[in-house]
Amino acid sequence: MTTIQVKRESEAIFLDNWKKCIGTGRLGLALQQEYLEHLKTVQDEIGFSYIRGHGLLHDDIGIYREIEVDGEKRPFYNFTYIDRIFDSFLELGLKPFVEIGFMPKLLASDHQTIFAWEGNVTPPNDYQKWEDLIKAVTQHFIDRYGREEVLTWPFEIWNEPNLVNFWKDADKEEYFKLYQVTANAIKSIDQQIQVGGPAICGGSDEWITDFLTFCKNENVPVDFVSRHAYTSRSPHKVTADYYYQELAEPDKMLAEFKNVRQLIKDSDFPDLPFHITEYNTSYSPINPVHDTTLNAAYLAKILSEGGDHVDSFSYWTFSDIFEELDVPKAQFHGGFGLMGLGNVRKPTYHLFAFFNRLGSKVLYRDDHILVTEKNDGNISLVVWNLVMEKGDDHNRVINIQLPLANGKYFVSSKSISEKHANPWRVWQEMGRPRFPSKAQVETLKQSAVPLFESFQEHANDVGLQLDVQLTKNEVKLIEVELLKDETPSYPGLDDSLIDSYS
Amino acid sequence: MTTIQVKRESEAIFLDNWKKCIGTGRLGLALQQEYLEHLKTVQDEIGFSYIRGHGLLHDDIGIYREIEVDGEKRPFYNFTYIDRIFDSFLELGLKPFVEIGFMPKLLASDHQTIFAWEGNVTPPNDYQKWEDLIKAVTQHFIDRYGREEVLTWPFEIWNEPNLVNFWKDADKEEYFKLYQVTANAIKSIDQQIQVGGPAICGGSDEWITDFLTFCKNENVPVDFVSRHAYTSRSPHKVTADYYYQELAEPDKMLAEFKNVRQLIKDSDFPDLPFHITEYNTSYSPINPVHDTTLNAAYLAKILSEGGDHVDSFSYWTFSDIFEELDVPKAQFHGGFGLMGLGNVRKPTYHLFAFFNRLGSKVLYRDDHILVTEKNDGNISLVVWNLVMEKGDDHNRVINIQLPLANGKYFVSSKSISEKHANPWRVWQEMGRPRFPSKAQVETLKQSAVPLFESFQEHANDVGLQLDVQLTKNEVKLIEVELLKDETPSYPGLDDSLIDSYS
Amino acid sequence: MTTIQVKRESEAIFLDNWKKCIGTGRLGLALQQEYLEHLKTVQDEIGFSYIRGHGLLHDDIGIYREIEVDGEKRPFYNFTYIDRIFDSFLELGLKPFVEIGFMPKLLASDHQTIFAWEGNVTPPNDYQKWEDLIKAVTQHFIDRYGREEVLTWPFEIWNEPNLVNFWKDADKEEYFKLYQVTANAIKSIDQQIQVGGPAICGGSDEWITDFLTFCKNENVPVDFVSRHAYTSRSPHKVTADYYYQELAEPDKMLAEFKNVRQLIKDSDFPDLPFHITEYNTSYSPINPVHDTTLNAAYLAKILSEGGDHVDSFSYWTFSDIFEELDVPKAQFHGGFGLMGLGNVRKPTYHLFAFFNRLGSKVLYRDDHILVTEKNDGNISLVVWNLVMEKGDDHNRVINIQLPLANGKYFVSSKSISEKHANPWRVWQEMGRPRFPSKAQVETLKQSAVPLFESFQEHANDVGLQLDVQLTKNEVKLIEVELLKDETPSYPGLDDSLIDSYS
Amino acid sequence: MTTIQVKRESEAIFLDNWKKCIGTGRLGLALQQEYLEHLKTVQDEIGFSYIRGHGLLHDDIGIYREIEVDGEKRPFYNFTYIDRIFDSFLELGLKPFVEIGFMPKLLASDHQTIFAWEGNVTPPNDYQKWEDLIKAVTQHFIDRYGREEVLTWPFEIWNEPNLVNFWKDADKEEYFKLYQVTANAIKSIDQQIQVGGPAICGGSDEWITDFLTFCKNENVPVDFVSRHAYTSRSPHKVTADYYYQELAEPDKMLAEFKNVRQLIKDSDFPDLPFHITEYNTSYSPINPVHDTTLNAAYLAKILSEGGDHVDSFSYWTFSDIFEELDVPKAQFHGGFGLMGLGNVRKPTYHLFAFFNRLGSKVLYRDDHILVTEKNDGNISLVVWNLVMEKGDDHNRVINIQLPLANGKYFVSSKSISEKHANPWRVWQEMGRPRFPSKAQVETLKQSAVPLFESFQEHANDVGLQLDVQLTKNEVKLIEVELLKDETPSYPGLDDSLIDSYS
Repeated sequence: MTTIQVKRESEAIFLDNWKKCIGTGRLGLALQQEYLEHLKTVQDEIGFSYIRGHGLLHDDIGIYREIEVDGEKRPFYNFTYIDRIFDSFLELGLKPFVEIGFMPKLLASDHQTIFAWEGNVTPPNDYQKWEDLIKAVTQHFIDRYGREEVLTWPFEIWNEPNLVNFWKDADKEEYFKLYQVTANAIKSIDQQIQVGGPAICGGSDEWITDFLTFCKNENVPVDFVSRHAYTSRSPHKVTADYYYQELAEPDKMLAEFKNVRQLIKDSDFPDLPFHITEYNTSYSPINPVHDTTLNAAYLAKILSEGGDHVDSFSYWTFSDIFEELDVPKAQFHGGFGLMGLGNVRKPTYHLFAFFNRLGSKVLYRDDHILVTEKNDGNISLVVWNLVMEKGDDHNRVINIQLPLANGKYFVSSKSISEKHANPWRVWQEMGRPRFPSKAQVETLKQSAVPLFESFQEHANDVGLQLDVQLTKNEVKLIEVELLKDETPSYPGLDDSLIDSYS
Repeated sequence: MTTIQVKRESEAIFLDNWKKCIGTGRLGLALQQEYLEHLKTVQDEIGFSYIRGHGLLHDDIGIYREIEVDGEKRPFYNFTYIDRIFDSFLELGLKPFVEIGFMPKLLASDHQTIFAWEGNVTPPNDYQKWEDLIKAVTQHFIDRYGREEVLTWPFEIWNEPNLVNFWKDADKEEYFKLYQVTANAIKSIDQQIQVGGPAICGGSDEWITDFLTFCKNENVPVDFVSRHAYTSRSPHKVTADYYYQELAEPDKMLAEFKNVRQLIKDSDFPDLPFHITEYNTSYSPINPVHDTTLNAAYLAKILSEGGDHVDSFSYWTFSDIFEELDVPKAQFHGGFGLMGLGNVRKPTYHLFAFFNRLGSKVLYRDDHILVTEKNDGNISLVVWNLVMEKGDDHNRVINIQLPLANGKYFVSSKSISEKHANPWRVWQEMGRPRFPSKAQVETLKQSAVPLFESFQEHANDVGLQLDVQLTKNEVKLIEVELLKDETPSYPGLDDSLIDSYS
Repeated sequence: MTTIQVKRESEAIFLDNWKKCIGTGRLGLALQQEYLEHLKTVQDEIGFSYIRGHGLLHDDIGIYREIEVDGEKRPFYNFTYIDRIFDSFLELGLKPFVEIGFMPKLLASDHQTIFAWEGNVTPPNDYQKWEDLIKAVTQHFIDRYGREEVLTWPFEIWNEPNLVNFWKDADKEEYFKLYQVTANAIKSIDQQIQVGGPAICGGSDEWITDFLTFCKNENVPVDFVSRHAYTSRSPHKVTADYYYQELAEPDKMLAEFKNVRQLIKDSDFPDLPFHITEYNTSYSPINPVHDTTLNAAYLAKILSEGGDHVDSFSYWTFSDIFEELDVPKAQFHGGFGLMGLGNVRKPTYHLFAFFNRLGSKVLYRDDHILVTEKNDGNISLVVWNLVMEKGDDHNRVINIQLPLANGKYFVSSKSISEKHANPWRVWQEMGRPRFPSKAQVETLKQSAVPLFESFQEHANDVGLQLDVQLTKNEVKLIEVELLKDETPSYPGLDDSLIDSYS
Repeated sequence: MTTIQVKRESEAIFLDNWKKCIGTGRLGLALQQEYLEHLKTVQDEIGFSYIRGHGLLHDDIGIYREIEVDGEKRPFYNFTYIDRIFDSFLELGLKPFVEIGFMPKLLASDHQTIFAWEGNVTPPNDYQKWEDLIKAVTQHFIDRYGREEVLTWPFEIWNEPNLVNFWKDADKEEYFKLYQVTANAIKSIDQQIQVGGPAICGGSDEWITDFLTFCKNENVPVDFVSRHAYTSRSPHKVTADYYYQELAEPDKMLAEFKNVRQLIKDSDFPDLPFHITEYNTSYSPINPVHDTTLNAAYLAKILSEGGDHVDSFSYWTFSDIFEELDVPKAQFHGGFGLMGLGNVRKPTYHLFAFFNRLGSKVLYRDDHILVTEKNDGNISLVVWNLVMEKGDDHNRVINIQLPLANGKYFVSSKSISEKHANPWRVWQEMGRPRFPSKAQVETLKQSAVPLFESFQEHANDVGLQLDVQLTKNEVKLIEVELLKDETPSYPGLDDSLIDSYS
């Protein structure tokens, strides 16, 4: 048993950078009803500030088209769908974290595409037309949503240009050119719009340095730096439907956050905001780890500490409605989503919902627990038992001593574990129905509720003591509230006069 | 440990008479928004067929008024509110089980009233005006809702006339007169409308016999017999806010059902339908037993067996929105409701929801369990551990052998107990806040979810065996469904390649 | 024909004091679902800031009760219903304009009541208990809604104490005593809560002077002055169901606003805010004028100019769900409501909705028109043709010259008149069904839509000219928006190639 | 002026075949939220029974896929999206009118596609795999929705195989082969499922004869015949965005209905049901006629008479959410939809809503009017003034004599015309904004309400006379209801005592 002595000496602030941004499948999916239902649930219960996804300029949304007039092809910009999409986001309290990409087919210099939905990843065939497109899009956003609003939207140029499958040949010079043209086009509409990049995935952090050097040397605008982070190692096994990997320790990701932050500090732009515009355990949308309790327990430390190093970090993604590797083939399929198909909350969903109950002051924090104080003086904490080894024998018992004044407290907890709020397991028990009936989906939803427990506790001179037991990969939210006992105000009350009660 | 060997030999039908009707506080409350929210939840999740409550003719709904025209008082019938109320019921899938009463002030022969809302319980001061009122009301229902609809509504005359506080002097002759005038008035509008009575409370079953004799002798129409049933004994303690009683065994109520059914069979109208138009444990709306798990465990046998004896039995009442003893004074106050204030489901709510999952064929039934088969051949059962004694040491273990063919089954359960789905206990832990904050109500709602558990099980040659443990007054729904194991259809699947899984 | 030359020279601000507050029937009605539906519609389409009504302390809400403990009666404060009511208001964006009254039966010194719902209008039988009640209520509001919120709520003491039917004997000294005790009780909870009075109806403005003198002399807190205003003369005919009066000219009401404002300026508290906490044409809830187009045309000038003189003026009331003279007896019955039963918008509803489209700068204003400029430079105006004489021959033609720059404008209008958006007339044509069927109510709702018309117009060097025709008591909203003609951006467009089009 | 003397002698039934089915853009669009909002409105206000559209087997829904297992490609059937789509339809009260097509890319024998969304129109590359697919899909529908439900769904094989752009080379023999394989595959799952074809467009009715002969000769199952009907002639002008055509007279389409019905009667299957599975004026989704009042006036006769000849006729389509010629490029763009983007009702929407108010008995019918009697004896009629010539001078006045008994009647009408319920015109006045702001869309919606008018009228010995004036292409619904005049029941009522009223 571990004993944790929490004190009120800390001045540390717990920043909610973990809820600044959330990832989404390609923006065209945002036309879907079920997508919007998932997003509404997420916003009602967690409430992110920004949303980021690929495909703004992809042909399904259809912004860039050409039209023949008097025998001549002219660009035509179609905002019918993107207006509907951004309207929906804003109605749900989400601002776009704009990602510029991929290449419209008519502007593409080559045929290389990525994903089942065939996002074109080649440079423009005509930089002037690209520039015109970017200006038109930016201007349209201002026309429709107002300058004041659009100034709060970051514009990130492209996605993971350091990977050959996301940017033809991972051509760094070409990316810098694209960045320069794009950033300048945006700024030509309004100097105060924020632009940034290079949106790389991990493993090539020299791109960050080179990118900032380029901006400095060429006097190219840059208002933020962005990067992605996944902690999974090379896969053990890859099939059409499954991708299995070992995970690195959570500290690996946090170290990356720190390292890049340091790179920025050491650059010519030491104060630039730093956004992790994607992160998760595995980068594969068919890795079953995403459906597990392990995924939640694993990410707990990232949520707990990530905000110390980065200005936002955006979980990839909020929903299993996602088509990068085709239409989902089964109820559970290893998708990134916090929310599974049919509005079934997955374990990691609850991790975020639990963190959403925390206060803004850190009282205590280690690898397994984050104890916070709320504005009203009450204490809420999240505690987890990450176990990456196999086997069942990994329970953990913790004694937590909270610095609370004498009095009565109402202690309530919610918990997810292998046993509770684990619809993936229930679905296995059902025989893994690929296309479950409505009744089966209803059962999965009912199974996906965290275990609620509560009791009343006294604090004495040494504070309030909690004995917490955690099973393997259990994650638990505990809230401790000072209570006013109104029991004496009920004249005549005597529970022992009820049959069977004492 | 008890062992129960279930067989498929039974031909018994499980009638859903328990969901034929539900009680409500006075009808005027049905104008309230929160009342309608509670009722919508109840209908979505349980789905009663009829609703019955007092106060159709009470002055808050205001049907009977008088108006002066040319210096003369004339009756005026105002249907503004009752139309809104019955419209709401029908939209929620509920038909009125019409209760004729109480007396409009302008027609009352005396000042005696009942309840905080002062329902007048005296005979009419002018039977002709009363008759005119009844005709006008009946005709209006037909005009608005159509004859076909109204013919499905039972009309019950008055409420508990055998009690002096519900009918002046409990004057039986006067009641028979009222019944005769009223029944004839209704039938004069349409002979096929069903009328009945005498709506007595328990303890005076000679009223039933006398009533039927009266109808026979005087040739008065009667289409059904109605009575109430509460199983509580005299109170130990009565204060302004609390009423404590010991409960009789559930069998007492079932015996009353049977006895009255026999009285009817022995009468001149042996085939009349028999409706229990109110029942509950305690008849007091400030008896805390109603908030407990005990209440649910107690009623389980009534729901299980009551339908064998009566054509409907109507739980009194669906919601704690109720004003017979004034506006509720606290979140929990011993009210009758399935649903507590703020849309908090109480334990007995879940009892009804559990029964709503049962099939229509009885495979096995005893004092603690009801096992049913559904139309699709799957099995669902409710099992309970009623303990009316004090003390904690009353767990119960049952081995149930279900007659299921070889194969894999998905077994899921939901459970309420002292520990789970018990918002009354959570509220106590909170310090019994009288007027809880919205956040506290939200916590209570979250606490009020039954414990969900599930597993996969094989049936072998002797069927499927379940070992069930029940704590004191736990009530558990268990559903067993034959499953099709699609696991082999996932090529490449290997859970053991996920970190920490085997 | 009248010609109106609008110029841009004005600096006058059009204050939206007309939407600061709205009146409601007794607060207990706010538990009703249909009431809340009406209020939601009003808030969605108009959006008042405060709501004020009688009955906070009336026995239906039941705040003041007594409970016997150990043989002694003690006060018991029940906030179950008022919490639900104020929660609903705040969810709809409305703050309470708190009216303290009437007297709980248990605190009343006599039996005198007002209204069908029997509000007791006598002084407290025990000023100490009254003071305790006021403190408890005020403290509870702060506990539940927070100090910051409650400091924005005005607390007005009693209603129309200068009338013998609203305050026993219209006893001014007793009112001052009540005011003093109540105001001090509120301030004892928080000095910054705003308190005021004397909430008198018109005709006794010496009460205002006397009240302020009293506050000065006795050092009693006062943060605002309140008064009511109705412009109807003595009735011609009064029956149980109808109350017919002649209306004074609108100027009479505006003169009252000015006069009282001057009284305040001349007092010891010259800067006190002045709130008209009720106004309408007739003060009777059974005067059919409220259902008419005349009512809307009449009030137009009040809405146009009232805000120049008073800090808020609160239309009495938003809905026909109202019980002062009993439950409404028919679909239309002369009720005060903007909204009729069944969610049918009455003509005056649209007057408010039209004013809600106006800008904040007055360009031109006279007895028949208010022309405003919006923040975006566009113009919107309301024009009306009030005719209080009988006969049909009262059309009016106006030529309006708007100071708009050369360009194309989209001009749209909405209009209510005897012919359009007049459900009262349609109901007459239907044969005045008292309790209309759902289909009839649906027809009434569909009839209650203002006539929409639109056209495109050019402004030339002298601006944009509108010729407006108004029938008797027509009220019209006209909105003029500069447009960007995108027609040339459609290559190939040629409407004349559609059959029958040119 | 025309005079129409309506009599009650007719025994003709007005069949609602016009509402049996409605067309939709490709089924994949049914995942969209706005699509479902449009469909919900349509169902609430009109209520079709079936819905038919292309693309069941298109790759966006993704039913047919292949997966590599042990080095071998195997078919994989993915029902994730189609389940969601059919669930949505059924929730909205719509059954699928299943259209089998187009060809999944992996099963296609060639690259030919149609539409912006690239539906493949070539025969299967492997008829065995096709057969397996059809069986799997059919079986899945039965598994999910139940046999009883699926037996009510017609299965139509392919779409317009007589056109080279819809079926490679318009190869009739190949189509018959496809039909045979497909129909037999479906019947192999359940003999009672209805299958049919040949789903041709007009102009090749020998296909019908040949198809039925083929079925007879080859003993191929056929349960219904289907065909399309558009009345537009060859285009005058075609651009990327516009397609202008002259329309033939409505009688041309009705004649086609009759002719094909006769062909069927003369065939070996004389009693087969005949479904028009698509019809409209123009077959082009960029013909502005679809946005006009003319379109509604034109189709009135088709709705009035079409049901005499065909078992269903399915308006193509319910919504402008449609992508055959790419994402819609402007608010109005000549789309087929009853409903425009942003939930703006177009004129033809109201035509359908008007017909939805008609009774089931035809009292009178000619080229301009349809008079019906409802079950309650009241009369409702639709009258229209179709004018296909240019010019404004085409008003029409009609005197209608209705065979109604003496009494008072409430006459109400709703009307669409160039002036009212014409959002296309309002949009033109606005300057044809391509991507209108939310405020502009709101204005368009408000403009799209039919003009409501009403009055009270007496019928005398010759019945009830209506003088109806119609402007060019006006369509008017008139409803005449016998009323009960309750006016005398209001004692004291005297409207003349209201100022300005007589």
